[in-house]
Amino acid sequence: MKHKKETPGLVGVVGLGLIGGSLGLDLQKQGWQVHGVVNRPITANKAKARGLAQVISTEPTILANCELVILALPLEQLLNPAQNLIKALPENAVITDVGSVKAPVLKRWAALHPRFVGSHPMAGTEKAGVEAGIQGLFRNRPWIATPNKYTDQDAIQKIRDVALSLGSEWLTTDAEIHDQAVALISHLPVVVSAALLSAVASETNPAIKKFAEKIASTGFADTTRVGGGNPALGTSMAASNTSALLKGLTTYRKHLEQLESLIISRNWVGLQTELEKTQIKRPKFL
Amino acid sequence: MKHKKETPGLVGVVGLGLIGGSLGLDLQKQGWQVHGVVNRPITANKAKARGLAQVISTEPTILANCELVILALPLEQLLNPAQNLIKALPENAVITDVGSVKAPVLKRWAALHPRFVGSHPMAGTEKAGVEAGIQGLFRNRPWIATPNKYTDQDAIQKIRDVALSLGSEWLTTDAEIHDQAVALISHLPVVVSAALLSAVASETNPAIKKFAEKIASTGFADTTRVGGGNPALGTSMAASNTSALLKGLTTYRKHLEQLESLIISRNWVGLQTELEKTQIKRPKFL
Repeated sequence: MKHKKETPGLVGVVGLGLIGGSLGLDLQKQGWQVHGVVNRPITANKAKARGLAQVISTEPTILANCELVILALPLEQLLNPAQNLIKALPENAVITDVGSVKAPVLKRWAALHPRFVGSHPMAGTEKAGVEAGIQGLFRNRPWIATPNKYTDQDAIQKIRDVALSLGSEWLTTDAEIHDQAVALISHLPVVVSAALLSAVASETNPAIKKFAEKIASTGFADTTRVGGGNPALGTSMAASNTSALLKGLTTYRKHLEQLESLIISRNWVGLQTELEKTQIKRPKFL
Repeated sequence: MKHKKETPGLVGVVGLGLIGGSLGLDLQKQGWQVHGVVNRPITANKAKARGLAQVISTEPTILANCELVILALPLEQLLNPAQNLIKALPENAVITDVGSVKAPVLKRWAALHPRFVGSHPMAGTEKAGVEAGIQGLFRNRPWIATPNKYTDQDAIQKIRDVALSLGSEWLTTDAEIHDQAVALISHLPVVVSAALLSAVASETNPAIKKFAEKIASTGFADTTRVGGGNPALGTSMAASNTSALLKGLTTYRKHLEQLESLIISRNWVGLQTELEKTQIKRPKFL
């Protein structure tokens, strides 16, 4: 059965930071009327100046009549939503979020709204806040939805249409699969990379440390990039995906210790065999 | 006292892989007559076809009359040099290498040639072999020399002139400082990054693994880049800089376990504080 695309109507975006602001810009370009909700009057003024939505307010009541509301909030606020926000969500609207962890979000929101669909557009820059939103952020990026057997099929279709209209690659999977996978490819690398920065910066010989800083090159920059990123984001990912991340860390430590053992025992044939395996494995993730 | 630059004369390059081949191309462009020594006749033919040197042979005797010889050999061959190579090095020539570890090289070569200077041009691509050399590889890259109190001052000057003529940034330090620093910013990241690839690829749930491969993005690609690099190079760095690398690994594990403890104890304030520190530390290495 073919799905009939609807004409863009009134959409609400709650939170106008990097993701919400970028959504506001792109959705307006697609013909939507965008109503944006922010926490503070000063943010509202900045968002207005940047044209992130046509109507911007700190009052969630502007979401009345929206057919679609996208909750572009930090995970903490998404998991502990304000009562006036919940009350302001139209009962017939499709509701989705943009959180990078899905099982706890689904668990919370299943009870709060009948047409909630969890989703995770995997896009970003190093910036955050009301100045961070840019046009075209979602183009050629995955937009993952995590429906379950209770999810409203029309609601999924509506979000899919929006994701495709913004140029995203549409993917669906179970929330648990999603959370385990992002723990491995996104949250674990943050910890691994942060520990590297922290270890190297802890060098106590000033001559070695100074020289290391001087000669550090693209290899070190790349390996430490995600560990030197947004601390609040890294923390909220760990806080909301703790068990999957800890599972990943346990596996990681095991593999690190295996490599270390090969080095301690000067087993260079064994080390080279392991590095040959990792060289072969990497392209699968690219 | 000003140093008088000499007119480029006859230079020998032993090994015409990524580094040696790139040196051959750049040195010819600077006016040098380049004699290149390779291991195998088939490599000699390929190197000739690519014009990596004017004279190319498997016989080190072509190094006779060279005023400068650059040993662009893998570390194993540099630490265990062939007897016919040692015999062929002119006694008055300046000899240097390009090895990424310096203390063991200096120790070996101090006894082999009176005008040896250890050096490490920090340049590279992901390629290796006789097809890998490119023009301009050393431009704006560090070229580190590790002289000691016995090192011939004129020899250092000659290598410095060459490094600067190829556009490198000239740095000098003690071999031990160099080796500890590269262990931290180059060799340790390889192990950290390889362990991450290995851990993620070991995921036993096929749905999670497949989804992880599908959504892995620039963050994962960057964090695993050096761990998916040349296995022989990674192994030889570990084999020749073992104690510094193991020291780095011990420190790394300590910092990793500290972050893991914060996550296990759900100490999100503590985790965010640590991530704020790493965010501040990273720019010093860029």
